[in-house]
Amino acid sequence: MDLGISDRVRPLIENVRLMVETEIAPLDQEYHEEVGRHPSGNRFLMTERQLEILDHLKALAKQRGLWNFWLTDSERGFGLTTVEYAYLAEEMGKAGIAAEVFNCNAPDTGNMEVLERYGSDAHKQRWLKPLLEGEIRSAYLMTEPNVASSDAVNVALEAVHDGEAWVLNGEKWWATGAGDPRCSLYIVMAKTDQEAQKHSRHSMFLVPADAAGIEILRPMRVFGADDAPHGHMHIRFTDVRVPETDLVLGQGRGFEVAQGRLGPGRIHHCMRAIGQAEKALELLCKRALGREAFGKKLVDLGANYDIIANARMEIEMARLLCLKAAWKMDTEGTRAAQPWISQIKVVAPLMALKVVDEAMQMHGAAGISQDFPLAGMWTNLRTLRFADGPDAIHRRQVARAELKKHTNSKV
Amino acid sequence: MDLGISDRVRPLIENVRLMVETEIAPLDQEYHEEVGRHPSGNRFLMTERQLEILDHLKALAKQRGLWNFWLTDSERGFGLTTVEYAYLAEEMGKAGIAAEVFNCNAPDTGNMEVLERYGSDAHKQRWLKPLLEGEIRSAYLMTEPNVASSDAVNVALEAVHDGEAWVLNGEKWWATGAGDPRCSLYIVMAKTDQEAQKHSRHSMFLVPADAAGIEILRPMRVFGADDAPHGHMHIRFTDVRVPETDLVLGQGRGFEVAQGRLGPGRIHHCMRAIGQAEKALELLCKRALGREAFGKKLVDLGANYDIIANARMEIEMARLLCLKAAWKMDTEGTRAAQPWISQIKVVAPLMALKVVDEAMQMHGAAGISQDFPLAGMWTNLRTLRFADGPDAIHRRQVARAELKKHTNSKV
Amino acid sequence: MDLGISDRVRPLIENVRLMVETEIAPLDQEYHEEVGRHPSGNRFLMTERQLEILDHLKALAKQRGLWNFWLTDSERGFGLTTVEYAYLAEEMGKAGIAAEVFNCNAPDTGNMEVLERYGSDAHKQRWLKPLLEGEIRSAYLMTEPNVASSDAVNVALEAVHDGEAWVLNGEKWWATGAGDPRCSLYIVMAKTDQEAQKHSRHSMFLVPADAAGIEILRPMRVFGADDAPHGHMHIRFTDVRVPETDLVLGQGRGFEVAQGRLGPGRIHHCMRAIGQAEKALELLCKRALGREAFGKKLVDLGANYDIIANARMEIEMARLLCLKAAWKMDTEGTRAAQPWISQIKVVAPLMALKVVDEAMQMHGAAGISQDFPLAGMWTNLRTLRFADGPDAIHRRQVARAELKKHTNSKV
Amino acid sequence: MDLGISDRVRPLIENVRLMVETEIAPLDQEYHEEVGRHPSGNRFLMTERQLEILDHLKALAKQRGLWNFWLTDSERGFGLTTVEYAYLAEEMGKAGIAAEVFNCNAPDTGNMEVLERYGSDAHKQRWLKPLLEGEIRSAYLMTEPNVASSDAVNVALEAVHDGEAWVLNGEKWWATGAGDPRCSLYIVMAKTDQEAQKHSRHSMFLVPADAAGIEILRPMRVFGADDAPHGHMHIRFTDVRVPETDLVLGQGRGFEVAQGRLGPGRIHHCMRAIGQAEKALELLCKRALGREAFGKKLVDLGANYDIIANARMEIEMARLLCLKAAWKMDTEGTRAAQPWISQIKVVAPLMALKVVDEAMQMHGAAGISQDFPLAGMWTNLRTLRFADGPDAIHRRQVARAELKKHTNSKV
Repeated sequence: MDLGISDRVRPLIENVRLMVETEIAPLDQEYHEEVGRHPSGNRFLMTERQLEILDHLKALAKQRGLWNFWLTDSERGFGLTTVEYAYLAEEMGKAGIAAEVFNCNAPDTGNMEVLERYGSDAHKQRWLKPLLEGEIRSAYLMTEPNVASSDAVNVALEAVHDGEAWVLNGEKWWATGAGDPRCSLYIVMAKTDQEAQKHSRHSMFLVPADAAGIEILRPMRVFGADDAPHGHMHIRFTDVRVPETDLVLGQGRGFEVAQGRLGPGRIHHCMRAIGQAEKALELLCKRALGREAFGKKLVDLGANYDIIANARMEIEMARLLCLKAAWKMDTEGTRAAQPWISQIKVVAPLMALKVVDEAMQMHGAAGISQDFPLAGMWTNLRTLRFADGPDAIHRRQVARAELKKHTNSKV
Repeated sequence: MDLGISDRVRPLIENVRLMVETEIAPLDQEYHEEVGRHPSGNRFLMTERQLEILDHLKALAKQRGLWNFWLTDSERGFGLTTVEYAYLAEEMGKAGIAAEVFNCNAPDTGNMEVLERYGSDAHKQRWLKPLLEGEIRSAYLMTEPNVASSDAVNVALEAVHDGEAWVLNGEKWWATGAGDPRCSLYIVMAKTDQEAQKHSRHSMFLVPADAAGIEILRPMRVFGADDAPHGHMHIRFTDVRVPETDLVLGQGRGFEVAQGRLGPGRIHHCMRAIGQAEKALELLCKRALGREAFGKKLVDLGANYDIIANARMEIEMARLLCLKAAWKMDTEGTRAAQPWISQIKVVAPLMALKVVDEAMQMHGAAGISQDFPLAGMWTNLRTLRFADGPDAIHRRQVARAELKKHTNSKV
Repeated sequence: MDLGISDRVRPLIENVRLMVETEIAPLDQEYHEEVGRHPSGNRFLMTERQLEILDHLKALAKQRGLWNFWLTDSERGFGLTTVEYAYLAEEMGKAGIAAEVFNCNAPDTGNMEVLERYGSDAHKQRWLKPLLEGEIRSAYLMTEPNVASSDAVNVALEAVHDGEAWVLNGEKWWATGAGDPRCSLYIVMAKTDQEAQKHSRHSMFLVPADAAGIEILRPMRVFGADDAPHGHMHIRFTDVRVPETDLVLGQGRGFEVAQGRLGPGRIHHCMRAIGQAEKALELLCKRALGREAFGKKLVDLGANYDIIANARMEIEMARLLCLKAAWKMDTEGTRAAQPWISQIKVVAPLMALKVVDEAMQMHGAAGISQDFPLAGMWTNLRTLRFADGPDAIHRRQVARAELKKHTNSKV
Repeated sequence: MDLGISDRVRPLIENVRLMVETEIAPLDQEYHEEVGRHPSGNRFLMTERQLEILDHLKALAKQRGLWNFWLTDSERGFGLTTVEYAYLAEEMGKAGIAAEVFNCNAPDTGNMEVLERYGSDAHKQRWLKPLLEGEIRSAYLMTEPNVASSDAVNVALEAVHDGEAWVLNGEKWWATGAGDPRCSLYIVMAKTDQEAQKHSRHSMFLVPADAAGIEILRPMRVFGADDAPHGHMHIRFTDVRVPETDLVLGQGRGFEVAQGRLGPGRIHHCMRAIGQAEKALELLCKRALGREAFGKKLVDLGANYDIIANARMEIEMARLLCLKAAWKMDTEGTRAAQPWISQIKVVAPLMALKVVDEAMQMHGAAGISQDFPLAGMWTNLRTLRFADGPDAIHRRQVARAELKKHTNSKV
């Protein structure tokens, strides 16, 4: 169980770390300050400067061969193991736009995996190619406003067969990235057969973002922020026609596609969360060493040593657990790794939220302001406790796997 | 130690609760949706509809005699005890603009207390009168960007005596309410004598918001939001001249004014936090009873019974502690109540944050969106862990009071 | 809602506190060191010195009129309210044998309540009178080894009607106090009708400890200790005949008796827990102030200020909640107070365990040794998380009461 | 960073696991029930049955080549890495006497390391040889009753040079194993030069347990239990003469010996703690699946799924951290591994205590009784939060290592 940094990935990590720290992070702040300055007043249109920043950084990354790391098991990727990629994801977590710069951002990576594994040649040509090039973006439409979507069986957007097409009607929300003007493809889960077995009722569709009948109702706000320009959109489908050929993998196999998609994505999310926690702890220590109150450095007041020690210990443990989940996936496959992925999906965001919270507190009110990246980290991490399944679902999975050890033994 | 609801205050509570629930809460949502719709594009200017909502509700409140409850020990107020007022503050916590509707909102109440206790007749005429009428608003300028302001001795904005005036130079930030176009008065702590005893170096000044030399640099953002129109402003003072007569209470007595101001305000904050926790628990229960997943009501899944029970127990305990602190203030005065106020200042926001966090989680992603008031509660409560002193300072006060029992006993 | 100390109870509290501190606590240590020194080697026989200590202290208490405080609503007691008694229970929690000294110890108080409320004149004459005098002791036999007794419906010890007697067969354990040679009476829950409605299957019996067919199998050990001489006994009933007249209140009314018995007892337990927490915090502070390491007082190292502050805040909150539960019982009765009692039953032991745990840690290894009362407090408090229902049951009750507010509102 | 099970150690783990489960655990219970049955009444003398059990099991272990695994870097041991040994320690944690059966028990392993690394040939012949054979036992005397021994500089037992001997006077306590009649050697830290540099004031001595002037004052009790027959003894030294040749390594080098001794020992302790947590979780699950209340299996009530999931996640994380600390020690040495060892010393016992506590609660009162090993695990783990330095010291070390990253960077 080698959870360490391989010789192959070491220089990649070093290059990514350096680029994030010295080139991306400074422009990241400027990128976010540009939001809302488009002459039209439309916050979901990017300013010239925003496009310039992204193009510049993506070109740099491509040129240096730091691109599409996530393609773990493909000939076109680096052929990295999940463990190796995990260390890169951690570094990419340390600045807001870093993952996109290296073309490793959600939800595109997961969507590209869907296309790679289950797409037809035509799908690959039309959608996968430009996604791999970073020319377009995509969204994943699963969650719905009117049902508890944590139980995906509840998904209610309906697809009815009509001639050689399916006709989609219903609503989706929290379509992350769908606000981005470059977002061209939606991968949509829809109910195709209410009468089928519970996990065969749904199918997955590829739908162009500009298909007739699609209407973006509003951006969902996250703690008041619209996360423009990518956004999390609330979308209505009214008689949207999708050709039969754009139903992926086969009718009733939506759950299969969804599961295949989620495993690696959850590990990436968690490792980025750990990168954020590391960054937050660094900021915490620097602030604690750099300010004074009551005649002492902040670090020498109150419980600050304990706060720092606890943060360090919890980061270490969460990282090791993520690496073990990645190793399980590499050696035993996604299904066997499932309980481990559930474990980290609970552990990593909670841990990172705690560390970021302490870092904010150490900064005083500045910590929750625009002057530091901490508040942004926090809201981002908080959404991660819902994304790809809420904590409660994952705890349930972990417990069931545990209990199975003892119920099986009785048979 | 009667911590219950008196006969006198019972009907007031009932009237306030009813008005908050049926009249204020519905308009509160509309009020917040109006933010940013002023034709000028300036988010800190109110739309006509916003003004209309506020005027309408405030007129209603005045007309029903639900106004200025906070004036606990004045002839002009209701003469309520702090315990009695606490129950009202709890109700006012349940909707965003409710406190302002009843003219009981921070920082105005604290500022009015300063004027009431320490102001000259001229001060009262010029500032207190319109504040009591709800015609103008005010801000309190204490915290500064360049020092750890949790140790108020660090406050560095300088006031130099020059003829019959003081000349102020420096920066303040997190001036809550200073974005509001109706905000006319700043109460400003400034250093008047670097060489004096530690707690006699500072004085408190009354400064008109439109004084020459005052420049609003930017709104501070709270988890990305600017909290327009009231806002939390970053302000620069450049050679701002303040007449000698507008130094309150006496030179070097700034700490005395600050202490007198903070006690009741902290109790109000905490009781509003408890109101928010109650509201959040109500929303949590309703959601848990109203949605289904995996063939069961949400409430019957996972640890939800325990989550609800823990929330109920923690709310009850925090409320009782707040009431005891209020009772201490009523019966033994602000100074004796100090350790108790420190206790609730730590306990109440942490408790409320936890309950709101669970409520958000029960709602799925909707919980952090604009569709529910939970995310707004959360960010508001999170700021409360800094406002009026961070948790760490208050824990220190509580511990010192505890240790004093044992060190004194040795003398 | 007056939760304060009444004028009536103030001198009683003062007298009890003084006697506990100056007379009982010193002898308490000696009493416990005597355990196991009976010439027979039988740890459940008291030494002469043990009897002497108890007799001496009980005589003193009686003589000073500090006796049977718990009899809250009887003419023979002090007529104290539960709130008033709560303050006395807190003081009695501060030394191991204090409650017995004042004849206020579990399970005798609860058993005396049963006799007082539901006993016949003959029962009162035979059992209540000597119990009120402190001449005999009693045990309460509910829990059984072979069923999950947290659901009392599971209670399986069987009573079969035979002529004018009932014949009992089965096992009970954790019969606290049944090891004490003075223990003369067992109050026993038994199943009298398997076919009845769920809560009418059981009845309560008064059984002399020396009845034929009763066999004490062994003392249950609590973290290795047998708590001699009172002990927690595992007892077998083999064809034990109980006259019909010793079935209390009526056949099938066992649950009614049990519920009536438990309410006040739980409050007493919780208030004693708070007394232990107060004692522990006092010891913690004294140790932290009295020892040095790394050139500083312990109190000035690590997170100790925060530990002290948190302890103080949590004690205050738990006490207020207990007092409110007591007030509910006084003003609205046991049934209405039920959810409040469930709340404190969860909160008070957990809080006290935490404070005692921190106090032990501050003492180093001495803290868990015989040199301090902390370890004894800890194991005692830990059992309280099972006694009278485990935490989980009580959390469930609290949640159900909360949810009822919202489900009722829909009808 | 290979943290997995090597091919070399895999069969050893399997053999140890099997022997613990099928041969040691059943006799372990009997062994402990024998305590106190020696005809003399002296609980620190072993009964014939106790000796028989130990001899039998140790002979079996030796015969199967399962002996002295801990000797990680010696030619006489297995030459296992610390990572490999860690997995064995975990298995040995699952039954009370297992570590002794394999001659891997504290404090003997640490003491043998001292003799191995720093002892003279004569020391090795006299003490190490019989210890390696499991013929005698030893104790380590560091902690003292009158000083805060967490700061080892405080150690006050005095050694004065006199001719060719040192004369020792003072008191030690918590000398674990010193109650065991087979305990023949004390390794004693004593102050040899008050005037020296802080970390050069102390030296380490080898003292025969039967040296003149040594007096065992009493067994320290752990939550009421004396842990006979090995015990934790309070010992007085009165003019105990130790030949110069029995001062280990050199005068003033006591700290060096202590540090070299503690590193691996702490890892062993922590891995055994993880073994206990695993055992406790197993018992918890089995009880939850095997009992019913309110018409459901216990596991389906309350928050039990979450409790199980949290336990699993925390065990996994703590184990991985221990393995990483072991790997650090293997690859970079004890000094570099120090902060990692401090991390696990905090994390592992706290985690295991939490899991065992939940397991006890799931068992109802049975969980804290002699019928299950849980209470014994709990008290044992609780002492581990003091042994080899309290949590607070280790947190301080972790924080200092963290802060050093940022203060160095400024130089």
